[in-house]
Amino acid sequence: MKPDPSRTVAQPAEPAGSPLLVVGSLALDTIETQSSRRDEVLGGAACYASFAASFFAPVRLVGVVGSDFPSAHEALLRSRKIDLAGLERVAGRTFRWAGRYAADFNNRATLDTQLNVFETFRPKLPPAYADSPFVFLANIDPVLQLEVLGQVRRPRFVACDTMNFWISGKRSDLLRVLERVDMVLLNDEEARQLSGKDNLPAAASVIRGMGPSAVVIKRGDAGALFFCQDGVFAAPAFPLESVVDPTGAGDSFAGGCMGWLARNGDTSPAGIRTALVVGSVLASFCVEDFSLDRFRSLEESAIRSRCAAFAELVRFDSVSF
Amino acid sequence: MKPDPSRTVAQPAEPAGSPLLVVGSLALDTIETQSSRRDEVLGGAACYASFAASFFAPVRLVGVVGSDFPSAHEALLRSRKIDLAGLERVAGRTFRWAGRYAADFNNRATLDTQLNVFETFRPKLPPAYADSPFVFLANIDPVLQLEVLGQVRRPRFVACDTMNFWISGKRSDLLRVLERVDMVLLNDEEARQLSGKDNLPAAASVIRGMGPSAVVIKRGDAGALFFCQDGVFAAPAFPLESVVDPTGAGDSFAGGCMGWLARNGDTSPAGIRTALVVGSVLASFCVEDFSLDRFRSLEESAIRSRCAAFAELVRFDSVSF
Repeated sequence: MKPDPSRTVAQPAEPAGSPLLVVGSLALDTIETQSSRRDEVLGGAACYASFAASFFAPVRLVGVVGSDFPSAHEALLRSRKIDLAGLERVAGRTFRWAGRYAADFNNRATLDTQLNVFETFRPKLPPAYADSPFVFLANIDPVLQLEVLGQVRRPRFVACDTMNFWISGKRSDLLRVLERVDMVLLNDEEARQLSGKDNLPAAASVIRGMGPSAVVIKRGDAGALFFCQDGVFAAPAFPLESVVDPTGAGDSFAGGCMGWLARNGDTSPAGIRTALVVGSVLASFCVEDFSLDRFRSLEESAIRSRCAAFAELVRFDSVSF
Repeated sequence: MKPDPSRTVAQPAEPAGSPLLVVGSLALDTIETQSSRRDEVLGGAACYASFAASFFAPVRLVGVVGSDFPSAHEALLRSRKIDLAGLERVAGRTFRWAGRYAADFNNRATLDTQLNVFETFRPKLPPAYADSPFVFLANIDPVLQLEVLGQVRRPRFVACDTMNFWISGKRSDLLRVLERVDMVLLNDEEARQLSGKDNLPAAASVIRGMGPSAVVIKRGDAGALFFCQDGVFAAPAFPLESVVDPTGAGDSFAGGCMGWLARNGDTSPAGIRTALVVGSVLASFCVEDFSLDRFRSLEESAIRSRCAAFAELVRFDSVSF
């Protein structure tokens, strides 16, 4: 058999886990940090989540791009074996977002949002995707999240993200989504807004009452808290001396977590704890460069090393007196 | 021997550790939260730190109060075997502070500060305190912190706190303190201000270059990061469904940590990790009520239980693939 010249050393083997369906945005992002700027680079929640998950499980991506979407971006996703049968290509411009970060990266200003082809997006799953056992509904209109759930048969584990815009503007639709998901990931301000509680454990209790047995509250560089019937798990963010661009960190966190669950199959509270550590590790790689650039050269061995470093980060000898 | 009627069941045994010297403020605080208010309750950094430490080691407290300082407060400190030979009582009014917390407790406004007798405070150590092996310099003028260091002989382990006011106003004095301490505890904004670095690991590197081998960055309900030559340790804050008053949490954290070090004697990086967990646990009790009220009834068994719960909070199965 002749060697395929398009294959490179970095080409991944077929991942071992169950298929993970990811639905959400693909975007062209323009990012300004204090020290640098990138124009129209690959981004979007579903893009980051798919890429992070692809290190662990076969990913099926459902989204939409315009006719201006560079073929190199599609090739990059394919290089990670991400199934693009559900990627719709329509006439018009791809979704664009532009933002600028403060010096400490904990605040950002949105400079521009152009929904473009994303504005009329209606997710249509290829028939083969209907049996997807793991589903991640990235941050999109909850009406569309419900349409996706109407197209999958009895998934084993469904997670969703959301945002302030839907919590205030489409609350009843969002509540219908929450009734049907196993896990919701959202940031601290969103958790407060959704629950009406300022205290995060109290907010998580209220949100668990809305349906999801697992509530993950993301806090940027302060890490994440996972609440379920068994108690609380605190996963710190991996401290990095150099952060280049935090765009997509939360989506990479969710994608890494869902990819691990799909690979490992253990969706118990203990399994979710480990998955969140994997998500935190993937998020830590994401922020080391603009766009998905750090992921391009990311090797499994580097992921393993950082998972070990993560365990060291939180290790302490038991307190006895 | 006749039983002493002033002794109660809660009276602690003499703590086992080496003596810990704590120098700093005692105050009468007026606290407003969204739901409640307390007027002129016991507070002050040294007061919180001493009380938290007293569960683990014999504490020597150096500070100043006015003639209006209630004798019941002194009795409360004595009930924890805190040595008050270094507590100066002078004519005039005790230091007063008043503040109001936002709903999420992460921001507070200072409504009033009256230094009163604290304004002319010059710490004078009783001769017996000169051999204190463990020293915690709570947040006071670095000139006074230096005066304390001039009065102790070869302490084993010295830690200090500071604040934005001294970082900008008495930077050169503060730098002289930092050259002489083993550990500094400060919050994230203070770390950024002191180092000129926005990134926290980078800030810690700069601050370690100023002298202290251990740098602890406190982040409120986002926990703390400990940096030393061995790497980083992340201690989350213990999540609580009900927070009543966060005043003194950082000081209780420092006091619990220093008390544990004085008791345990292990000041290696591993020993400091465990001590920071103990500090985090003490801080979590502190915020459950106003002033030092939660500490009044705190039993060792409750501290042990929460230390075990803390271990469970961060536990996860190792990631292998």
